[in-house]
Amino acid sequence: LGAQIVFKQTDVLQFLSQNPSLKYDVAVLTHCIWYFTSPNVLQNILQALKDRVRHVCIAEYALSASSNTSLPHLLSTFAQNALFVRNPTSTSNIRTVLSPAAIIEIAKKIGFHLLTFSTITPSLDLRDGYWETCTVESVDFVQEVNEKVTDVNEKVAIYALRDAMISALETLKLENKQPSTMDVWNAVFSISS
Amino acid sequence: LGAQIVFKQTDVLQFLSQNPSLKYDVAVLTHCIWYFTSPNVLQNILQALKDRVRHVCIAEYALSASSNTSLPHLLSTFAQNALFVRNPTSTSNIRTVLSPAAIIEIAKKIGFHLLTFSTITPSLDLRDGYWETCTVESVDFVQEVNEKVTDVNEKVAIYALRDAMISALETLKLENKQPSTMDVWNAVFSISS
Repeated sequence: LGAQIVFKQTDVLQFLSQNPSLKYDVAVLTHCIWYFTSPNVLQNILQALKDRVRHVCIAEYALSASSNTSLPHLLSTFAQNALFVRNPTSTSNIRTVLSPAAIIEIAKKIGFHLLTFSTITPSLDLRDGYWETCTVESVDFVQEVNEKVTDVNEKVAIYALRDAMISALETLKLENKQPSTMDVWNAVFSISS
Repeated sequence: LGAQIVFKQTDVLQFLSQNPSLKYDVAVLTHCIWYFTSPNVLQNILQALKDRVRHVCIAEYALSASSNTSLPHLLSTFAQNALFVRNPTSTSNIRTVLSPAAIIEIAKKIGFHLLTFSTITPSLDLRDGYWETCTVESVDFVQEVNEKVTDVNEKVAIYALRDAMISALETLKLENKQPSTMDVWNAVFSISS
């Protein structure tokens, strides 16, 4: 299949505007939304794709903990998200946490409708959930909160999320379980006719 | 025991300063900390009690979900807390979410040390966890977020918590389970000698 695949490492909005005649069967956004600096980025990308694709496939974390082993990943997500809103130039993995419902709402606004979706529980080999808990547990995270968040109430709100995550990790340790990665939501959108 | 009990419905700091000679065996702070407008309130109360009590007993939610039935309560707590930091005159039930670790840290700073603690899972009759999820699920909550939170990233961060809570509630519904109240942390502090 090699000859039929072209890799472009580029900004999608820039690429689409520089190649206005290109049309596609499917655009795939896989685990990219949480890296965006705001929900407007997703909105702009879907707007640019609107008249040029038949389907958009999206994969993103589902924000659901189907087992208590993925609860630390869920809580680490919200802790990092709460820090990001006070430190918007951060390049952390978790910046714009959009739930499946929030993604559907944005897509609908642009003119896409949800065709089908599924939720899968990743295999234990996918270590992202564990890595995110390490980020939040780290001294660097605490330092960043202390540096970037000045309001005492906002600070304790982030520490409460971090402490709840640590407590969830301790529970797993007692049960001799490893923290896992939360469920993934896979959706196919189609242009509304 | 009636004759030995005196009820005073008053502000504790004001009461202590107006009655400087009164000393006590034990001061009990039961499920009050989360109503405080900032962590400084707890700090000031412990400071005022410091030379006038032998022990301080504290009961507060543990921020741990020992079962998936209390996950919605945990997530509703963080959603309300995130709204409170943008709406500090709110009189909601959940304002200053201090974890057990955060309470211990404040107590230590004043000169108290943790003598003993336990964590209990409330009986299903305690409906507080369910009520908190109703608060976050309500149209009023959504309206308050839209009115009080102007930054789009902060707004989606709160909606992500709300959507995760709704997803956790839906999971319980499929399992034919009721949302429950999260664990309670009970601690006894003593003045450090």
